[in-house]
Amino acid sequence: MLKVAVIGATGYTGEELVRILAGHPHVRLAYVSSREDRAQKIQDIFPYLRGRVDLDCRPFRPEDALGAADVFFLSLPHTVSMRTAPALLANGKRVIDVSADYRLPDPALYERHYGEKHADPERLREAVYGLPEFFRDRIRNARLVANPGCYPTSALLGLLPLARAGLAWQGACVIDAKSGVTGAGRKASAALNFSEVNENFRAYKVLAHQHEPEIAEGLKRAGGKGAFVFVTHLLPLDRGILSTLYFQFPPGTPEKRLRDVFESAYAKERFVRVHAAGRFPGVKDVLRTNQCHIGLALREETGNAVVVSAIDNLGKGAAGQAVQNMNLACGFPEEAGLE
Amino acid sequence: MLKVAVIGATGYTGEELVRILAGHPHVRLAYVSSREDRAQKIQDIFPYLRGRVDLDCRPFRPEDALGAADVFFLSLPHTVSMRTAPALLANGKRVIDVSADYRLPDPALYERHYGEKHADPERLREAVYGLPEFFRDRIRNARLVANPGCYPTSALLGLLPLARAGLAWQGACVIDAKSGVTGAGRKASAALNFSEVNENFRAYKVLAHQHEPEIAEGLKRAGGKGAFVFVTHLLPLDRGILSTLYFQFPPGTPEKRLRDVFESAYAKERFVRVHAAGRFPGVKDVLRTNQCHIGLALREETGNAVVVSAIDNLGKGAAGQAVQNMNLACGFPEEAGLE
Amino acid sequence: MLKVAVIGATGYTGEELVRILAGHPHVRLAYVSSREDRAQKIQDIFPYLRGRVDLDCRPFRPEDALGAADVFFLSLPHTVSMRTAPALLANGKRVIDVSADYRLPDPALYERHYGEKHADPERLREAVYGLPEFFRDRIRNARLVANPGCYPTSALLGLLPLARAGLAWQGACVIDAKSGVTGAGRKASAALNFSEVNENFRAYKVLAHQHEPEIAEGLKRAGGKGAFVFVTHLLPLDRGILSTLYFQFPPGTPEKRLRDVFESAYAKERFVRVHAAGRFPGVKDVLRTNQCHIGLALREETGNAVVVSAIDNLGKGAAGQAVQNMNLACGFPEEAGLE
Amino acid sequence: MLKVAVIGATGYTGEELVRILAGHPHVRLAYVSSREDRAQKIQDIFPYLRGRVDLDCRPFRPEDALGAADVFFLSLPHTVSMRTAPALLANGKRVIDVSADYRLPDPALYERHYGEKHADPERLREAVYGLPEFFRDRIRNARLVANPGCYPTSALLGLLPLARAGLAWQGACVIDAKSGVTGAGRKASAALNFSEVNENFRAYKVLAHQHEPEIAEGLKRAGGKGAFVFVTHLLPLDRGILSTLYFQFPPGTPEKRLRDVFESAYAKERFVRVHAAGRFPGVKDVLRTNQCHIGLALREETGNAVVVSAIDNLGKGAAGQAVQNMNLACGFPEEAGLE
Repeated sequence: MLKVAVIGATGYTGEELVRILAGHPHVRLAYVSSREDRAQKIQDIFPYLRGRVDLDCRPFRPEDALGAADVFFLSLPHTVSMRTAPALLANGKRVIDVSADYRLPDPALYERHYGEKHADPERLREAVYGLPEFFRDRIRNARLVANPGCYPTSALLGLLPLARAGLAWQGACVIDAKSGVTGAGRKASAALNFSEVNENFRAYKVLAHQHEPEIAEGLKRAGGKGAFVFVTHLLPLDRGILSTLYFQFPPGTPEKRLRDVFESAYAKERFVRVHAAGRFPGVKDVLRTNQCHIGLALREETGNAVVVSAIDNLGKGAAGQAVQNMNLACGFPEEAGLE
Repeated sequence: MLKVAVIGATGYTGEELVRILAGHPHVRLAYVSSREDRAQKIQDIFPYLRGRVDLDCRPFRPEDALGAADVFFLSLPHTVSMRTAPALLANGKRVIDVSADYRLPDPALYERHYGEKHADPERLREAVYGLPEFFRDRIRNARLVANPGCYPTSALLGLLPLARAGLAWQGACVIDAKSGVTGAGRKASAALNFSEVNENFRAYKVLAHQHEPEIAEGLKRAGGKGAFVFVTHLLPLDRGILSTLYFQFPPGTPEKRLRDVFESAYAKERFVRVHAAGRFPGVKDVLRTNQCHIGLALREETGNAVVVSAIDNLGKGAAGQAVQNMNLACGFPEEAGLE
Repeated sequence: MLKVAVIGATGYTGEELVRILAGHPHVRLAYVSSREDRAQKIQDIFPYLRGRVDLDCRPFRPEDALGAADVFFLSLPHTVSMRTAPALLANGKRVIDVSADYRLPDPALYERHYGEKHADPERLREAVYGLPEFFRDRIRNARLVANPGCYPTSALLGLLPLARAGLAWQGACVIDAKSGVTGAGRKASAALNFSEVNENFRAYKVLAHQHEPEIAEGLKRAGGKGAFVFVTHLLPLDRGILSTLYFQFPPGTPEKRLRDVFESAYAKERFVRVHAAGRFPGVKDVLRTNQCHIGLALREETGNAVVVSAIDNLGKGAAGQAVQNMNLACGFPEEAGLE
Repeated sequence: MLKVAVIGATGYTGEELVRILAGHPHVRLAYVSSREDRAQKIQDIFPYLRGRVDLDCRPFRPEDALGAADVFFLSLPHTVSMRTAPALLANGKRVIDVSADYRLPDPALYERHYGEKHADPERLREAVYGLPEFFRDRIRNARLVANPGCYPTSALLGLLPLARAGLAWQGACVIDAKSGVTGAGRKASAALNFSEVNENFRAYKVLAHQHEPEIAEGLKRAGGKGAFVFVTHLLPLDRGILSTLYFQFPPGTPEKRLRDVFESAYAKERFVRVHAAGRFPGVKDVLRTNQCHIGLALREETGNAVVVSAIDNLGKGAAGQAVQNMNLACGFPEEAGLE
């Protein structure tokens, strides 16, 4: 059994990582940490874990951690991961970074969108972008995996089949994305107070979301071209992202052409499902799974197409995909612990 | 005091009409009806009305209704309104129809989208489309007002300023619309059961929503051209519609140009508010009001623009706007009863 | 028109006060303040107020406030009201205090439950407890009204009819109370983050809630005796309190006896409604009203009785009742602005 | 691998049974059925099951079912189970009945509360009431297990430790119970429409809930005495039951006495957890688990005690407990498939 650690185990993604890893058949969860001062048992913090795991949760100390585990999940705020990963990697550990720190290849881009100079720029090109459906070969044996953001996962699974198949769209694709509240992390915030979000729905960071360059880079990595516009909205629910993508194709393009592109892209994928014609997924269809469900429609006379992609932002959008990446990097069956 | 009636008073829109009309300074709510067999007091059905109104609510009988009121709000399912309105109009009554029956000028279009031959086709061109911000002059003194649908209201308030100003967009505008559950009406439905909608979010009637031709006709009525794609989604909340509109303008178009178009269109409008740069409305900002709030952004280097429009689907999207139309048609101050 | 002020206008209760007072027929909202540093227009903070009110909202400064208004609503955190009210009262102003500071007659009790020595102890006995249905005569012309807490309002409206009628219960009455989240105020708090409250329900401050002595004092003020146990719970919704009260009466007590007590207590009350046998209110029945709805049942063979009381915690539980108290204190019709 | 069947697989409880059994290490889900006319793959009805199970779901036909499985979970409406179980039992199958049909030992009681004559009265005394923490020995090897109702599970786990320890309460214990909406089943119902339940909270079936006799019988089965009052409420959330129990003990009873009773009752129980002093569970603590969490407090000077019990109504309150019962009846480890 491989020993694994979750650094930052008490945020929503960290908690989900602990939950998944506690039931994983090929690893043993051996170390968890959290910024909280007071050491506690992780199963006392999340009581549903009782009987499944028995571990102290204390602030991260490299000297304890290095001896405890072989694979490290970093579920840390951005700018913290890039200061934590180097020592782990230097000691031969494998790192799955759930933060944004290693997702953009260009340090200037990182600085522009995350407001701080990158602390570990030379590793940016070495880090592997962990979207298995498109970059599986690079993830195998990777030492440092940059786990994709939740919105980029949702968007790229709707965009990259087109890039791979060379089916180009005209003008800018629209990516209208909606996320549940856990996407914002576990923190005190007046704007995320129950009564501000409940019975409400709003756009935020319009044309200014930090996940936009990540989507652009993901598209480029897959050899794709094509412009897009990206707007994010906050849904009054816990978990789930639904992205509605709008493409303009030449009038007369048959819906079957689009459907073939998606069905062949995902025919062998265990975690992506293309719905039949006329069926579209809701976020509850993928709740607490590592799946992405996709529905699509195309109006032939105008060439307008709609692709809807649904994931759980903590599942395929974060912790689930991180475990899928670990499975690939460590040679386990890709679905281990995820079904 | 003008006497008014609400036919179909126990659906969500009917209830909201009763609530608003009970506090209106220039009218007296004199007659309410509902399909429910058992006659009841309306204030027993909606107990918060106690002390504000005292009226029997029984099945609609024209012989009772005609003597009771001068203005009739028809809050009926489509295909029922067009069978109810003629007798009222023939008796000199004024009708504000909240259903879809008189919104489309072409009976063939109605039949295609509502699945039934129109029963009163000759009145379709006589009916006035009740979007006051754009068709105010026609609404004044109108005998038959077709109150706009909730989605069309939300979409057209984001489209028509461009049509009026002659600011054309390229390709198809995207209208990504999201609605709360009261938009579907008060009815038993497994798909609208709490646990199906709660913690869920999904697209529905993709590229096939019956409000699409209404938006197209509204655009045409205002002299606008331009294609659009329209997709609707179901939000897990009671009330509110938020539409996110995406336009492609020529690169280099300044944001100020777009802002000027919206600000001048709505400068004198009491019920539409354009937010300052960088601010976008949420549906809670307009909850239980007759207001529409609009936010916008434009990226000059690409010409991509985003317009967000928020209304309460039962307020500006239905009952509030119906009362605004009555105010116009009857010569009352436009805001009477609505603030 | 009497000029009124709301001190603390941007909390949930303050906002509701502004909303109600902006539509009140006999007063003019003349001054609002908030701790927020930056002066803003109140209608920019709450955009749905646009067209109804036009007022600067800035930090409270007594020198500005005293000249601006005659009646002051203090919607302040406890311990702040008792430092703000004295200067207003000394200048002849009328004060409706929505905080807990003047609700308990005994300063020792205050100190024990609110953790601080009372700053204005001599006024505690002069302050009038503002539950109009039971203390209406004392509220008329009162200079200082202590507006009841939300839980105590809900509980006392279910207890005091028994006290007044001399119908004693055996042992301890159980008050199982459940509140929506706005009851906790508008603030950043990890525990009130959307994803902590949503899809959750929990008891809190079990046998230790600071509203317990207020209920005990309210009972005593009405001449009632009888023990009770009080537990509060947090509901995943914005507004509403439902209290379920359990009484033990002697076996054989007829349900009609209990019903008569409640119906005669509230027969002339505009804001309290006793439901018919077999009907029980939900919090949505009283949403955004100043009403309290009550349902009751008694099992004669055992003498067990259940009384359910529903209010809107921001309506009858705070702002609505505060305006009702102002109406009484100032000689307006009791329902002015509240229907 | 034992072959198991779920009869009624598309209701909320049936779906949860399928989900749990698909991951159970010692059984193979071999047959599922549903009233729905159209045969479908169960993994197409619940797409998150794809990759985990591949089974047709069609209307129940005994001739197919008998050959397919050894253990049958009946997730059927009451009155249907008692017509389905006999043939299965006569053919040597084991039955875990999730309906109410075999929970009450007395057919007259059944008829009074479920409105129909019992169709299989002779088996009522043979059926074992499946609350493992208290009736474990009888469940081992049982052929017919009556799986407890959700409310009774929640209530009895708070009552039976007292019965077993002989700690009697005075008067009637109050059981104030609140449940999420899945407890009402998956069905079209205007009263369960999203907008009726959302932002609402109400009591229902006050002093008239059909689970009351089941609680009384459960208490009796454990040798307990003592009266209780039981009221149920509907929470605006999907899953979870929280019951707040109020007991009157003699003044001076130490809290430690109560705590000892609960801690010793559950010390060896894997699925019941007693929280430390001052801590109370919320329903989210047990979401999607087979656990019951309990918190308690006692005020020594008055003898008033509060016990709070939280379960997931579909987990420990239905499907989870049903699998726990199967594990016991079939000799598997009790926690198999449940952690």
